[in-house]
Amino acid sequence: MARHMSPEEFRRYGRQVVDWIADYLGTIESHPVRSQIGPGEVRALLPAHPPERGEPYEDVLKDLNRIILPGITHWQHPNFFAYFPANASGPGILGDLLSSGLGVQGMVWATSPACTELETVVVDWLAELFGLPSHFRTDSRGGGVIQDSASSAALVAVLAALHRASGGKIGAEGIAGRYTMYVSSQTHSALEKAGRIAGVGANNVRVVDVDPVTLAMDPAHLRALIAADLAAGATPALVCATIGTTSTTAIDPVPEIGAVCREHGIWLHIDAAYAGVAAICPELRWINEGVAEYADSYATNPHKWLLTNFDCGLLWVADRKPMIDALSILPEFLRNRASESGEVIDYRDWQVPLGRRFRALKLWSVIRWYGAAGLREHIRTGVTLAREFAALVAGDPDFELRDHHPFGLVCFRPLWTNEETLALMERLNDSGELYLSHTKINDVVYLRMAIGAPLTTRDHVVAAWAAIRRAGRDLRSG
Amino acid sequence: MARHMSPEEFRRYGRQVVDWIADYLGTIESHPVRSQIGPGEVRALLPAHPPERGEPYEDVLKDLNRIILPGITHWQHPNFFAYFPANASGPGILGDLLSSGLGVQGMVWATSPACTELETVVVDWLAELFGLPSHFRTDSRGGGVIQDSASSAALVAVLAALHRASGGKIGAEGIAGRYTMYVSSQTHSALEKAGRIAGVGANNVRVVDVDPVTLAMDPAHLRALIAADLAAGATPALVCATIGTTSTTAIDPVPEIGAVCREHGIWLHIDAAYAGVAAICPELRWINEGVAEYADSYATNPHKWLLTNFDCGLLWVADRKPMIDALSILPEFLRNRASESGEVIDYRDWQVPLGRRFRALKLWSVIRWYGAAGLREHIRTGVTLAREFAALVAGDPDFELRDHHPFGLVCFRPLWTNEETLALMERLNDSGELYLSHTKINDVVYLRMAIGAPLTTRDHVVAAWAAIRRAGRDLRSG
Repeated sequence: MARHMSPEEFRRYGRQVVDWIADYLGTIESHPVRSQIGPGEVRALLPAHPPERGEPYEDVLKDLNRIILPGITHWQHPNFFAYFPANASGPGILGDLLSSGLGVQGMVWATSPACTELETVVVDWLAELFGLPSHFRTDSRGGGVIQDSASSAALVAVLAALHRASGGKIGAEGIAGRYTMYVSSQTHSALEKAGRIAGVGANNVRVVDVDPVTLAMDPAHLRALIAADLAAGATPALVCATIGTTSTTAIDPVPEIGAVCREHGIWLHIDAAYAGVAAICPELRWINEGVAEYADSYATNPHKWLLTNFDCGLLWVADRKPMIDALSILPEFLRNRASESGEVIDYRDWQVPLGRRFRALKLWSVIRWYGAAGLREHIRTGVTLAREFAALVAGDPDFELRDHHPFGLVCFRPLWTNEETLALMERLNDSGELYLSHTKINDVVYLRMAIGAPLTTRDHVVAAWAAIRRAGRDLRSG
Repeated sequence: MARHMSPEEFRRYGRQVVDWIADYLGTIESHPVRSQIGPGEVRALLPAHPPERGEPYEDVLKDLNRIILPGITHWQHPNFFAYFPANASGPGILGDLLSSGLGVQGMVWATSPACTELETVVVDWLAELFGLPSHFRTDSRGGGVIQDSASSAALVAVLAALHRASGGKIGAEGIAGRYTMYVSSQTHSALEKAGRIAGVGANNVRVVDVDPVTLAMDPAHLRALIAADLAAGATPALVCATIGTTSTTAIDPVPEIGAVCREHGIWLHIDAAYAGVAAICPELRWINEGVAEYADSYATNPHKWLLTNFDCGLLWVADRKPMIDALSILPEFLRNRASESGEVIDYRDWQVPLGRRFRALKLWSVIRWYGAAGLREHIRTGVTLAREFAALVAGDPDFELRDHHPFGLVCFRPLWTNEETLALMERLNDSGELYLSHTKINDVVYLRMAIGAPLTTRDHVVAAWAAIRRAGRDLRSG
């Protein structure tokens, strides 16, 4: 028999790992934000061949410190301002740990009823907290489901949309003829990737113009593109409107876009991967204007700004039938009384893979620890700190601030060339003091300061601004 | 500010959760294997609305016992014999916990170099341990990557195959014309699902005949179907051969199938989701005959029988270029020096979603704790117990045993009608004593006894057989 770790050994090593994480979180600021190592350095420290004999777990923890930690970019560091935050939290980690410990696989209701039913409850809770329409709730024709990411949620939406647009034919016959999708230059690349995966093809993912100032999708141009495609014999299947784009958190005009979609019976997917969770604050709920009236599907990720460890994305649909029809296959080995009774949900038909982790536990754990009030406070802290940072930038004549939306992202730039702006960013990121990312707007490079990590305070934001100005001066003078 | 869980609180609650899991694993046999609850029972015990205020974590743990646990089907129970095992292990849980605690997102190398490089090392280690060909190693043109499941691995293989079959055109132009894929009636439904998702369509997923006894794919019929499709103007893109089918662990003749594929330049995907890990034992390595010569891609899941918590699937490809070409999109916000240097791997281009967890940690943790020798022992224990169970069945004239492959699955049936066999299974599963699943072979229902959980011993298998016989007698007598 293999030497399995006994429950008592698990208890001992489990405490060591918990202590390791508590110490890590308590001293995270002692690490450079972005890993300082070069390509191949971690790999070079690891043995070329696997161990033949088992090793004490203490050795794994030693190597974690010696080899792995220097190769970590610390997403939970209070000075991590790159991309969007990928919030983790104590209750999120613990919920994930419970999921690992239970080790269930919730592909159908019967393989762990609690895995399915807790998921139904927490996605309905969040629909309520975000003020989403009642037809997204599971007791309606629609419903919500946990996905690994907004990319996968987008793919599911595209597949449901193609199913509907083809009158249900695509599943059997495949793509025949030309189907089109509509995004803007600001839409996340996941939509083009979904279009490629689904066999629509990148050329049929049409790029709608945006307003040059707000970067919001132009509904008039959308209408024109659709008309041209229809005239050319194509079948428009899906429009993706974004609430809070990756580049600048721009918000597409959902009511106007929705009206165009309704006119032509086109599926409207809303990608609110980052910003959607902000609707938990009543004062920000306006961001979802038009969603209740027009959206066929809606995605937002608690793993970005809502304190739930990656991976935890959410997808809601107004009508679950086309999604299930697009994705359901019932092999003999999955047949069971509960599924056949029609009284239960089998979430395997709401996603691409068959198997599924018990992800609802971490979301449940987070919602209960923070309560709705605590989650709102977290969002508000991010919004406030971003506003304060923007005020600092606005007060400096050497920098340009982009008008920003009331989330956690501030886009700004020194009044230099693109190359110099990127050099400033690299210098800052290389320093390990803080970590920023960049974007390009009308060919001009802007820095992105995304605020929203639980550990980030006013002091971190003020210090970051001082570091940016200092690095700018050093670059200019040296 | 929201009340975040402090590192010291995390330490305290983390220990409680570790203790909870240690106690759960130590007393798992006190639970019925399959949850005894009916539809809606968990949901009814949960509040209809989310909490407004945060709650003590102790309350979450209380509800875990009171509400969630009765709704759990215990996949780690030693009497769980349904489907295939979904092995968890102490080191697997701890590796997963470390991943949650670090909370990194490894979409590109730069966002946590160790996440990428440890993955490269462990998939290369496993290629070596499984005796896979050197062109699957990362220092060749190929390479391996962790996926969430064999379904997603199959979808990636289909997309790479379509890319190659279309001369690189599909990504831009979408599916135009008819592409075909080839599976057998015994192939996992994930392949048909992948064909539907990719726009190929279920009708173009051709079903090759199987040998009525061995249930292995018939290469002559494959050849005939391909010839007919070519004559009809279709483009054959992919053949999936299975090593260890879901239904009965049948093994398709890879060398003969591979020769057909080579003749026509068709992508050969090997689905060894369950059985592939058995190749860690030299005496079982023959199952991969033909893989080195012919396979373009190969999938197996450590989360089934190799002690690594779900989700952890592996995909290897012989040439990574068509896969990356099919899946890569580079938006501005992901541009970075390391990626542009060409010296690093960005695994986001090896999968459907963009974001990725640090899954390599759990695999590393498992390999180091058990060592190659320990992993082999685990597989051998399953094989031995299955052989012993088969001998028990073979010795009983009231039962029919199907010839079985040298893995952990035994298919058998009482010499009754299908309805009676299913009634026997329901009675056993309802009892909570053990959990079996079923399959249908040539319209005859067989029971599937899948052995391979770390806690399963000879005593459990002997007791299961006694329970099956007893339930059979009870059913017959009354």
